Amino acid sequence: MKAAVIYGAKDVRIENIPEPNATAGNVKVQVDWTGICGSDLHAYHHGMGVSETPHPVSGRSLPLTLGHEFAGVVTEIGEGVSGLAVGDRVAIEPLIYAQDDYYAGLGKYNLSNTFGFLGLNADGGFAEYAIVGAGKVHKLPDNVSMEEGALVEPAAVAFQAVKSSDLKAGNNVIVFGAGPIGLLTIISAKAAGAANIIAVDISAERLEKALEVGATVSVNSLEEDVDAKVRSLFPLGVDVAYEAAGAQATFTSAVHSLKKGGQLMIIAAFAKPVTLDVTPVLIGELKITASLAYRHVFPEVIALISAGQLDVKKVITKKIGLDNLVEDGLELLIKDKSQSKILVNPRG
Amino acid sequence: MKAAVIYGAKDVRIENIPEPNATAGNVKVQVDWTGICGSDLHAYHHGMGVSETPHPVSGRSLPLTLGHEFAGVVTEIGEGVSGLAVGDRVAIEPLIYAQDDYYAGLGKYNLSNTFGFLGLNADGGFAEYAIVGAGKVHKLPDNVSMEEGALVEPAAVAFQAVKSSDLKAGNNVIVFGAGPIGLLTIISAKAAGAANIIAVDISAERLEKALEVGATVSVNSLEEDVDAKVRSLFPLGVDVAYEAAGAQATFTSAVHSLKKGGQLMIIAAFAKPVTLDVTPVLIGELKITASLAYRHVFPEVIALISAGQLDVKKVITKKIGLDNLVEDGLELLIKDKSQSKILVNPRG
Repeated sequence: MKAAVIYGAKDVRIENIPEPNATAGNVKVQVDWTGICGSDLHAYHHGMGVSETPHPVSGRSLPLTLGHEFAGVVTEIGEGVSGLAVGDRVAIEPLIYAQDDYYAGLGKYNLSNTFGFLGLNADGGFAEYAIVGAGKVHKLPDNVSMEEGALVEPAAVAFQAVKSSDLKAGNNVIVFGAGPIGLLTIISAKAAGAANIIAVDISAERLEKALEVGATVSVNSLEEDVDAKVRSLFPLGVDVAYEAAGAQATFTSAVHSLKKGGQLMIIAAFAKPVTLDVTPVLIGELKITASLAYRHVFPEVIALISAGQLDVKKVITKKIGLDNLVEDGLELLIKDKSQSKILVNPRG
Repeated sequence: MKAAVIYGAKDVRIENIPEPNATAGNVKVQVDWTGICGSDLHAYHHGMGVSETPHPVSGRSLPLTLGHEFAGVVTEIGEGVSGLAVGDRVAIEPLIYAQDDYYAGLGKYNLSNTFGFLGLNADGGFAEYAIVGAGKVHKLPDNVSMEEGALVEPAAVAFQAVKSSDLKAGNNVIVFGAGPIGLLTIISAKAAGAANIIAVDISAERLEKALEVGATVSVNSLEEDVDAKVRSLFPLGVDVAYEAAGAQATFTSAVHSLKKGGQLMIIAAFAKPVTLDVTPVLIGELKITASLAYRHVFPEVIALISAGQLDVKKVITKKIGLDNLVEDGLELLIKDKSQSKILVNPRG
């Protein structure tokens, strides 16, 4: 079968590899669409996040099939699997972790010490077929398209951050960064009842997209003073700030944007440490929190997409075939800021 | 009457000033004991925290009677005050704020934008008599001594931090800083059911005191690697870290000490910004939170002291008369690390 295999930084090859079979406890999925994630960009451009030594759960290391945002159809059922049938349309929750992990035992499997991803620490979804743990495939209702199915994973990241935040209906929020996760955070915050959603980015194209998906105000931080703008709109500040940018400037603005008692929810990874002035945190009893990936929310995200409450397909800006993954996907996303989510068809 | 009046940095004078009368809505309290707080030290040594221009609520500025941790007996009832009588033994909650403040209206009066303290932004308790708002005096049961009454205020700071933290009975916690607030945090955490309490400081004398009041382990961070020690005791980390020291080293150790999902509760003011590595916060979904002063907890603190659950008097290391406030109090506390809480009698 055809697959996009990563060997290291700047080395992703479209190859023919043996078609896998469903082993015990797993199902085989014929992949329809796979999204390109920021993690894929980090893996391709910098060799980051991919297992160079055998991962404790998968036992796998480079070379690996890339891709972890995918949906498809079940074509084979492994031994011991129940509740799934050939033909089921499914979205994949691409996490792996040891079943006996302490945090997994608490239900917090995203905090597992052995946490990893299909597509980074085991074979993933940029391929015609993928093998997935039966507990990690989630059925899609008929009215959820396969393209939407591929968006469940990034939507779950954003939805988890919103769901685990203090946001209550009627609150005002700010979202820093209008990349795919920022956009999906805006969509999730809207679904959760946010009254006003301020989007902050440095790209006019991304901000336009932010307004299209539900932001009520956009602020280009290269052109406007974010703090002044926020206070002009909401003199007391906003209730929740979502940090989906991961930089010093946005982190500081996020702290400054908050109402007393407000919450900063970090979604983005930060390449460098930040400087934090503790005084406003203490004086305002601010909360700085973080949300990592997701746990237990795939069914809710799928239900909200099905109900028309999470219009995730708006973040799709391009669809390509697997043969063009590198040039029209992994390279293009760095150059073209008008791109948000690019979906890849493995048979293209 | 005799009072300790602050005129500015390094200028606290023991003077005779006119005895005040209870105005409408206020009561007059004959002060028994007043504790010396870290804020008093900042005010005396650096001129910090005291109103140099008229405070929006009190209308007062320097010179002011210092002192905000006090208890005494009601000797006069102002017009319109009910529920209090001459002779009532009371602890004072020394906060002032505008009644029409947005946060006060939400019940979060400690977050009021006009928040201030008797003894820093209005006349306080280092005097024979003080005038206090009727809603801010709390009756003491007979079995709570006046010395304990003077400790209700700092105990409330620590108790509020513990109460508003995620601490559940059986949890393990760490307390950075074993000054009066750190010690009272240890005492409060013990009352709240903490199983193990690690105390961290750089003073052997303070750590000895920490063990005396309820810490189960002490770590001198000048002699031992805090991170290694914590992980040797609790490989997963602790549930809650209380930051009552306010320095970069303790802040960083506090982040590192936590279990995934754990909480850093900031109680101390920080003189300088800190550097924060966001990665462990994200990977561990850590929470960085803060607690400022107190709201609504004086009655609970008094009840717990009365019930023998908060043995606050253990933090008292010295009692002095008002005439010796500067030399035996404000100056001594900087020099002698074996001192914790010094109580002052205005008639001494």
